[in-house]
Amino acid sequence: MTGPPTARPTRSAADREALLAANARFYAAIERGDLDDLAALWKEGEDTSCVHPGTGQLRGTGVILRAWALVMAQLSYVQFVLTDVRVDCHADMAVVTCTENVLHAGHDVPVQSFKGARATATNVFVRAAGDAPAGSSPWQLVVHHASPVLDSWEPDAGEDG
Amino acid sequence: MTGPPTARPTRSAADREALLAANARFYAAIERGDLDDLAALWKEGEDTSCVHPGTGQLRGTGVILRAWALVMAQLSYVQFVLTDVRVDCHADMAVVTCTENVLHAGHDVPVQSFKGARATATNVFVRAAGDAPAGSSPWQLVVHHASPVLDSWEPDAGEDG
Repeated sequence: MTGPPTARPTRSAADREALLAANARFYAAIERGDLDDLAALWKEGEDTSCVHPGTGQLRGTGVILRAWALVMAQLSYVQFVLTDVRVDCHADMAVVTCTENVLHAGHDVPVQSFKGARATATNVFVRAAGDAPAGSSPWQLVVHHASPVLDSWEPDAGEDG
Repeated sequence: MTGPPTARPTRSAADREALLAANARFYAAIERGDLDDLAALWKEGEDTSCVHPGTGQLRGTGVILRAWALVMAQLSYVQFVLTDVRVDCHADMAVVTCTENVLHAGHDVPVQSFKGARATATNVFVRAAGDAPAGSSPWQLVVHHASPVLDSWEPDAGEDG
């Protein structure tokens, strides 16, 4: 069991801040229904993937953004409260994991019927190339995988084995 | 909308083969209940994460392997048939996505009661450093995120939006 390799410069506090900002911007874009900002966050291309709770893989940024447009069109209100956010940097790639505490409602739902849900998300970002378009994030999303968390799940269950 | 950047050498056929092999080795290790081989596949350290269907994030390879040991101890039989496997290479990182068609049974379950389930998985690998221990994979797992797929999910739903 050797120690970790020498820390790389990418693991800087500035990178962590930029990654947390990119992750927050992702959820804020969904809350606002801002497809343009969502598109600016995702890496353009076919080598991206997205899973919503209960779905299989959506692949390619065009397909992924069309699916987000459908999701956002069906919601009159959505709010994410992120907890347990963690950033893991690996050279020019980073993984942001978090719990999505979601409050949402559809268009024909009275405000009293807002629903809460808990999901866990794995968001993988790659460092944008030097020639990234203006307005795009310095870290671009290549994977979003969100899945439901059972009410019976206890965070420490895996740590007591 | 500019085209993709110039292909990097990591996107070689050899890398794809090695990644498919690492991904297959991961599921084969679970099927055999081979915790040592599973440990050789995961990157050592705290910067790894794992989600099983219905769970939140398990973080750090020690915690992740203990959870796998518990899962494997509870199963008398498990078989994965992987379909829809795709490899996306990003420099020294790669994402393998696939559908896990799982056949499994617990210890006190007669063979007639084997259960089938369908999950979708996102497996993120990083290229091992040059000094990786003997027997370890040239691509090491840093993320496994598996989640249940609803029976009503249609693969093309997101592509017709």
